[in-house]
Amino acid sequence: MAQPLKGREIHLKSRPKGEPTPEIFELVEAAVPEPTDGQVLVRNHFMSVDPYMRGRMNDTKSYVPPFKLGEVLDGGSVGQVVRSRSPDFKEGDYVVGGTGGWREYAVAPAKHYQKVDPSVGPLSAYLGVLGMPGMTAYVGLLDIGKPAAGETVFVSGAAGAVGGVVGELARIKGCRVVGSAGSDAKVKHLREQLKFNDAFNYKSGPVAESLAKAFPEGIDVFFDNVGGEHLEAALGLMKNHGRIVLCGAISQYNATAPTPGPRNLMLAVGKRLTLQGFIVSDHGDRRADFLRDMGGWLREGKVSDVSTIVDGLDKAPDAFIGMMRGDNTGKMLVRLVKDA
Amino acid sequence: MAQPLKGREIHLKSRPKGEPTPEIFELVEAAVPEPTDGQVLVRNHFMSVDPYMRGRMNDTKSYVPPFKLGEVLDGGSVGQVVRSRSPDFKEGDYVVGGTGGWREYAVAPAKHYQKVDPSVGPLSAYLGVLGMPGMTAYVGLLDIGKPAAGETVFVSGAAGAVGGVVGELARIKGCRVVGSAGSDAKVKHLREQLKFNDAFNYKSGPVAESLAKAFPEGIDVFFDNVGGEHLEAALGLMKNHGRIVLCGAISQYNATAPTPGPRNLMLAVGKRLTLQGFIVSDHGDRRADFLRDMGGWLREGKVSDVSTIVDGLDKAPDAFIGMMRGDNTGKMLVRLVKDA
Repeated sequence: MAQPLKGREIHLKSRPKGEPTPEIFELVEAAVPEPTDGQVLVRNHFMSVDPYMRGRMNDTKSYVPPFKLGEVLDGGSVGQVVRSRSPDFKEGDYVVGGTGGWREYAVAPAKHYQKVDPSVGPLSAYLGVLGMPGMTAYVGLLDIGKPAAGETVFVSGAAGAVGGVVGELARIKGCRVVGSAGSDAKVKHLREQLKFNDAFNYKSGPVAESLAKAFPEGIDVFFDNVGGEHLEAALGLMKNHGRIVLCGAISQYNATAPTPGPRNLMLAVGKRLTLQGFIVSDHGDRRADFLRDMGGWLREGKVSDVSTIVDGLDKAPDAFIGMMRGDNTGKMLVRLVKDA
Repeated sequence: MAQPLKGREIHLKSRPKGEPTPEIFELVEAAVPEPTDGQVLVRNHFMSVDPYMRGRMNDTKSYVPPFKLGEVLDGGSVGQVVRSRSPDFKEGDYVVGGTGGWREYAVAPAKHYQKVDPSVGPLSAYLGVLGMPGMTAYVGLLDIGKPAAGETVFVSGAAGAVGGVVGELARIKGCRVVGSAGSDAKVKHLREQLKFNDAFNYKSGPVAESLAKAFPEGIDVFFDNVGGEHLEAALGLMKNHGRIVLCGAISQYNATAPTPGPRNLMLAVGKRLTLQGFIVSDHGDRRADFLRDMGGWLREGKVSDVSTIVDGLDKAPDAFIGMMRGDNTGKMLVRLVKDA
């Protein structure tokens, strides 16, 4: 029998109060178990850090259970099958999964993984534009926001993994799209690389003022990743029968006390607005459509694979903390295999 | 030619700051003009006072234009055609309309009126269960809330003109329904007359506590007439995929400064909630269905015609002020013709 395999992984040592700090994480070396029947052993090439993980670091019930203290974190990852005890995968297959992240090697039931086609896009794209963030943009904008050609779309946090794709999809659908982002460099990225019709830096003035300038005609669809001031400003500018897609509220995830809601929410009555929250994992029935459409658009250059990559599992906590602060443009990823 | 007809009407003398007071209204006697081609002259038997009128007393743009200072107010009324210059109505017809209220005699285009059938329900019911409030309940609950049999429904302000009907419709649809109201007498009314499964007095403790007791299993559909504390409490108890029907926010209409929104609005993401505002006048295509269904349920005793009636046009301001304070049970009406 071969030498038992060892791998490094990141544990949650304590729960963050407010903004997460490096001290709440711990890098641990652990033996990698042999896969049992129905399981696969995957060597992760990339792992994902995502805003929703911040909620799971709290000890509160939500749509996903909290991370456990003293145990390895989990999340999305993409890699290669090293050993398979499942008929669904063979050694060498490239796979993506939602639960094997924050570690170099993962052992998990085969059903947690899906095979990916590295000819459609780089492996890392399966954690971004071809993965959960891309599908969040696809389902949220197209199925919930339902933009019609000629309508106006506002995306908050538009330089993030989801927001950038939302903007590109809105352009594909013939909409005028404006995004907000947290730096001038990101604003330039939105305008120049992602071809947003316009963009503004939400840190350089009141959102309501920037938004009123960007949308003299009002907003039909608002895709909200940020919450807080963004949501209140957008409510004031929504057109009648507008749709607000509630995807996230990264401005509030580090809050240590409840933050006030929009003071003008009741505009939703007179304007006949719909505000709808959603979770991408409810929409598995759209996965085939998503991969077909998004794969096509990626090949045609209509959507972009944008990411900010940090190297080494030991840097994963910094990557997460940085992502929460907005250090990334596009998808924030941790590369776990050199030259992957 | 006959003596020119004179009638009394209520003008808006000044705009209210916060809670409206009698001084902002003025009773004026004015000549009633002769109807011209396409118009009818209607003697009002009942006029309506409704929460949405409070918004129109402010000088702010909304889905209906503000009332003008020094001019007669308008709103719903039901009465009898005295003179007709339209082929659609003849003298003696009973009609309901949305713009001829706050006066004894109204002259208006015939297209502002609809004929009513006094054999289906009393004339006054066409301002209540068979009128705009009933249709608001019908469209809001059935088309927007979409309750399924076995689901749970919460109605805030349930003893009002809309809320009571919402509760009865929810029962007809096989739901468990609980309402909130502002007095113990109203709570008794909801439980005993309107057959709500349960009801509570929102003035006797925090809404969140009363609501948690009333819905140990959570809420599927929330029909909100009140806003504020009610909305925040309900958000905390909504079940996954729940629907919140935003009908009104009477708790906030007299506010002189913006009131904070629900601090927990972002629960809508994880719980996949939909919040939707609506205006009944958008749903004219449902009027025939509404009259057929509601007329049938009224005859079968499945919905109730509940109203609080005040006599005399001079009492209309008090009726409006009282309605805003919650003095009414069911529809608040002003009777303008003795023994109508």
